[in-house]
Amino acid sequence: MARVAVVGAAGYAGIETVRWVLNHPHLELTHVTSAADEGRALAALYPQFEGHSELAFVAPDISAIIEAADTALLAVPHTAALKLVPDLVDAGVTVIDLSADYRLNQADVYEAWYGVKHTSADLLEKAVYGLPELDRSGLAGASLVACPGCYPTAATLAALPALAGGVTANPRVIVDAKSGVSGAGRVPGPATHYCSVDESLAPYKVGSHRHTPEMEQAMTRAAGSRADVMFTPHLVPMSRGLLATVYLEVEEGLDAAAAHALYEERYRAEPFVRVCEPGAMPSTHEVVGTNMASVGVTVDAHTSTLVAVCAIDNLGKGAAGQAIQCLNAVLGLPETEGLHSVGPVV
Amino acid sequence: MARVAVVGAAGYAGIETVRWVLNHPHLELTHVTSAADEGRALAALYPQFEGHSELAFVAPDISAIIEAADTALLAVPHTAALKLVPDLVDAGVTVIDLSADYRLNQADVYEAWYGVKHTSADLLEKAVYGLPELDRSGLAGASLVACPGCYPTAATLAALPALAGGVTANPRVIVDAKSGVSGAGRVPGPATHYCSVDESLAPYKVGSHRHTPEMEQAMTRAAGSRADVMFTPHLVPMSRGLLATVYLEVEEGLDAAAAHALYEERYRAEPFVRVCEPGAMPSTHEVVGTNMASVGVTVDAHTSTLVAVCAIDNLGKGAAGQAIQCLNAVLGLPETEGLHSVGPVV
Amino acid sequence: MARVAVVGAAGYAGIETVRWVLNHPHLELTHVTSAADEGRALAALYPQFEGHSELAFVAPDISAIIEAADTALLAVPHTAALKLVPDLVDAGVTVIDLSADYRLNQADVYEAWYGVKHTSADLLEKAVYGLPELDRSGLAGASLVACPGCYPTAATLAALPALAGGVTANPRVIVDAKSGVSGAGRVPGPATHYCSVDESLAPYKVGSHRHTPEMEQAMTRAAGSRADVMFTPHLVPMSRGLLATVYLEVEEGLDAAAAHALYEERYRAEPFVRVCEPGAMPSTHEVVGTNMASVGVTVDAHTSTLVAVCAIDNLGKGAAGQAIQCLNAVLGLPETEGLHSVGPVV
Amino acid sequence: MARVAVVGAAGYAGIETVRWVLNHPHLELTHVTSAADEGRALAALYPQFEGHSELAFVAPDISAIIEAADTALLAVPHTAALKLVPDLVDAGVTVIDLSADYRLNQADVYEAWYGVKHTSADLLEKAVYGLPELDRSGLAGASLVACPGCYPTAATLAALPALAGGVTANPRVIVDAKSGVSGAGRVPGPATHYCSVDESLAPYKVGSHRHTPEMEQAMTRAAGSRADVMFTPHLVPMSRGLLATVYLEVEEGLDAAAAHALYEERYRAEPFVRVCEPGAMPSTHEVVGTNMASVGVTVDAHTSTLVAVCAIDNLGKGAAGQAIQCLNAVLGLPETEGLHSVGPVV
Repeated sequence: MARVAVVGAAGYAGIETVRWVLNHPHLELTHVTSAADEGRALAALYPQFEGHSELAFVAPDISAIIEAADTALLAVPHTAALKLVPDLVDAGVTVIDLSADYRLNQADVYEAWYGVKHTSADLLEKAVYGLPELDRSGLAGASLVACPGCYPTAATLAALPALAGGVTANPRVIVDAKSGVSGAGRVPGPATHYCSVDESLAPYKVGSHRHTPEMEQAMTRAAGSRADVMFTPHLVPMSRGLLATVYLEVEEGLDAAAAHALYEERYRAEPFVRVCEPGAMPSTHEVVGTNMASVGVTVDAHTSTLVAVCAIDNLGKGAAGQAIQCLNAVLGLPETEGLHSVGPVV
Repeated sequence: MARVAVVGAAGYAGIETVRWVLNHPHLELTHVTSAADEGRALAALYPQFEGHSELAFVAPDISAIIEAADTALLAVPHTAALKLVPDLVDAGVTVIDLSADYRLNQADVYEAWYGVKHTSADLLEKAVYGLPELDRSGLAGASLVACPGCYPTAATLAALPALAGGVTANPRVIVDAKSGVSGAGRVPGPATHYCSVDESLAPYKVGSHRHTPEMEQAMTRAAGSRADVMFTPHLVPMSRGLLATVYLEVEEGLDAAAAHALYEERYRAEPFVRVCEPGAMPSTHEVVGTNMASVGVTVDAHTSTLVAVCAIDNLGKGAAGQAIQCLNAVLGLPETEGLHSVGPVV
Repeated sequence: MARVAVVGAAGYAGIETVRWVLNHPHLELTHVTSAADEGRALAALYPQFEGHSELAFVAPDISAIIEAADTALLAVPHTAALKLVPDLVDAGVTVIDLSADYRLNQADVYEAWYGVKHTSADLLEKAVYGLPELDRSGLAGASLVACPGCYPTAATLAALPALAGGVTANPRVIVDAKSGVSGAGRVPGPATHYCSVDESLAPYKVGSHRHTPEMEQAMTRAAGSRADVMFTPHLVPMSRGLLATVYLEVEEGLDAAAAHALYEERYRAEPFVRVCEPGAMPSTHEVVGTNMASVGVTVDAHTSTLVAVCAIDNLGKGAAGQAIQCLNAVLGLPETEGLHSVGPVV
Repeated sequence: MARVAVVGAAGYAGIETVRWVLNHPHLELTHVTSAADEGRALAALYPQFEGHSELAFVAPDISAIIEAADTALLAVPHTAALKLVPDLVDAGVTVIDLSADYRLNQADVYEAWYGVKHTSADLLEKAVYGLPELDRSGLAGASLVACPGCYPTAATLAALPALAGGVTANPRVIVDAKSGVSGAGRVPGPATHYCSVDESLAPYKVGSHRHTPEMEQAMTRAAGSRADVMFTPHLVPMSRGLLATVYLEVEEGLDAAAAHALYEERYRAEPFVRVCEPGAMPSTHEVVGTNMASVGVTVDAHTSTLVAVCAIDNLGKGAAGQAIQCLNAVLGLPETEGLHSVGPVV
């Protein structure tokens, strides 16, 4: 049993991580931190945990984490991980970081998009990007895994077989994505007030969202050549679920069947990617509560456009589930360990 | 491993039952029926099941069920169970019936409320009412369990400690309940069209809902004396979750603390009932996806009214979860087997 | 044209009031205040108003209001009205107060429930309670109207014909009410975060909500004898709409038809109350966006309980619409002026 | 007062049209048809109309329409209008057709996409496309107006200034659109069951939706040269509202400010188009209940992509509102007549 700490455990990604850890047969939850909820029992904040854990939130403290855990899952905002990771790694704690701090290979790109200095750029080389379907080679035994953002996960999984298959005619990738509200986090504000979101739909940060360079990095890696991403996220009136609709210009002659075959081939062995039947497209509902990604693809010959759609649970494959999948890989467990259960239909 | 058939497996309660069976370590799903979806793979209708079951729906047929299964979970409309249960019980198949057909002890009450003849009234005596928190004594080894309706489950759990504790001043029980839309079933109609339900709230069948006599029977049993139920269900714009707010006139002098103590005492050993802290009340969200019931209680001294509120997942403790809990009891397994997992926070 | 100021115009009740004023043929909006949004154009905060008003929010200031307006509609939190009303009334400004400050006749009841000193108790006698269907006699020419709360409006309209008709057997009135989230106001907090409300239902402040004494006062007035109210509000996942389900013990022998006739008779001439057909019950959807109240009634003979249900738009008949209706009455206009438009079906 | 018939009045677009007609000062509703609801009073089906109209639905009959009305608004499915329009036009009834039957200029394109013979192709020349912002020149006095589909309305308004301004580098237009559920109509089916839609998001008919050729026709007209449209619609869990996000490749050097100026200039005089401030994007919520279109635009220099977003109410500017706007133009009234009212904030 690996002893696991979840840092930033009271937020939506954090508490979902806690849930997956408790439901996992080989992980023992030993430590949960939340600055805002210090001293409060997990089950007092979230009644769902009554009978499942006696832990109480403690304030985040590096020494306490090192003492309590072999592995730390960090569900913290960007910059917060910068302050924790170097010491944790030094102390031999395996770090699965759900924040943005170690996702980008280049410190200057991080600094340009996040507007802060990257204070442990030396670790960027060590950090393994945690999208197993793109490249799982570095995960076994890794000391630091940088889990992808929710949008880059969905967009990359949508585009990957086409990019890797070399069928694109153009480096431009248009990503039109739609997310449920839990992606905006637990801290209340005008934009997440029920009456702001309910019965409304809106884009935000068009062309300027910080997940853009991460998508470009992952897609460039997938393609083996430069990918330029135009990214438009939208907020949708639902709590969970994320869908990325990706448009790629392809060479004339590629038809829907050939594209589908490419996707089938690429994802055949992946336990967490489902390729929809030819002609079918995924809904977010079919993946909510799980670590699955559901991918559909077609080609519009008229405009030489490949359209690929990927649905994930932003808190599952987009956050907590993926973190557990990566941790399994790090620990040498089957990637599916603790992630088996069937999701709800309704 | 018990071999399990789910009959009526494509509806909401049925498919949730299938899900719980697949997630259960000691049950093997061997047979799923659906007249409307005959020949279709489970995973073709609901992609969630891909990789979890290779079964396809077959048309319901008694011989086939008897051959395939030791236990049959019936998630069928009332009257459909009447046609299946006698033969299944005769053949030694354990039956967990989620329909209304064997819930009422008296055939004439059934006939009055359901408007049809009860064709196997002899089995009513044999049928064990499947609300373990009310009385689990007959469940072990039972051949026929009649699982309660969703509303009677919530209402009875809300009222039970007060009724059993003898603190009521009056046989009248007012049950004002609110249910998510999945309770109305999967067949589309004007009342379940998204645009009918969304952003609206309405009562229905006020004073005439068929769960009324079932509540009276269960509450009378709890109280040891006649209970008269006034029941008003409401439809709420959400998919899952059910909340029953129950009003009981109590003797002057009973205060909130004493009522709370009564509830704590009654439910202390129950694995699937959580009593909220004094002053707190449950939300449906905290039980969705689980077999839990969350119960809060207070007393309004001004009007001598005890108000108890019970939240359940109508498809969990209100249907599939409860069926599995009962099946566990029948099989001599811990009631919690296969029902452990922590529910989602978001 | 009456010159109208809306004080507290940026909140949900306030901005809905602004909307009704702008759509009204005999009112001219001359002044809108919001401390938090001072200096911002109405249309900058809410694009809906572009082309409809050039006004910008100003900080609330008594002299400015007096100068700008003949009538002030106060959509402010309780205690805020206490600070404004005496000076406005002195200056001859007609005040339609949507806050709780002048609703209760007795200062001591206000002080007990609101926990603050009532600093202008002398005005309580002058204040006319603004529920025209209960009593419109004092409205014409009134200088201060205290508009009812949203819950007391719905609950009183549900109970009124029964109470006034003398058919109750008992002073106890159980009010189980359900409200959309806009009733909780525009200020963000954990309880109104989309992910807290979505797909959940919960009661709150059971037996302790401040609308309780207001209901008792209005119902006592309707009945001509003491009414004791047990009130349970619930929060429902929808933005607008409020439904009150009211339970009254009635004399044996009163049947549903007689109760319905009583309701028809009482409300025949009311332009804003619709009595549902016998056997039918209202939904909130059918009143959203309007000043209508839709009322259904039945009697459960088995338990001698009259159940009456009233649906309103909490921001319409529960706030802004009712304020305009009252203002029309004060000004000698038809109560329906500016409140005619048909509500949406979807 | 023009006497107006609404044909197909019980569906969502039809009943919203009825509502706008009733709220209009110069239109008199004289006739409503619905085959399915024949004989039923408008107010019996939709309580919202009680007190606003005494009409009952009649079965659709050409002679009756001709007798009752000067103008017929057809809110019928495609092919149904083919059977009505020739006779109505012959009889001198002004026809505002909300169906797809007269939108496409070429009968063969209609036949290819709709799979049925166009039986009155001669009228296609006479039919005026009812998108005033694209071209209002033919509307005054027109005898047959073909109102655009909801998606083409939003997509064309999003792309129009860019296309007309000649700043595109490429005929390819990517339209990623998202619609509320009322767009799918009132007839219940599995896809519009509350539990299918709620908390889910999915694309449908990717690259094959019938609104594609209509968009191409309108955009080609706007651009003065061929436009090729790749169209992906998505279903969103909300009742009303539609948002089109449109991607156009533009010449290098066009920046966001220049694009915004182009949009401002084009829409300056349009009463029903609001151009968002630079940097801002619209939400559907800000237009629901109105005939407004809200348009935002930006340019991503990195990928030379212009992104324009248009939000409309699919039943407002996307259907009923636009029909009234066109009818106003036909009748020589100001286009805004009867369409003034401010929409709700919550």
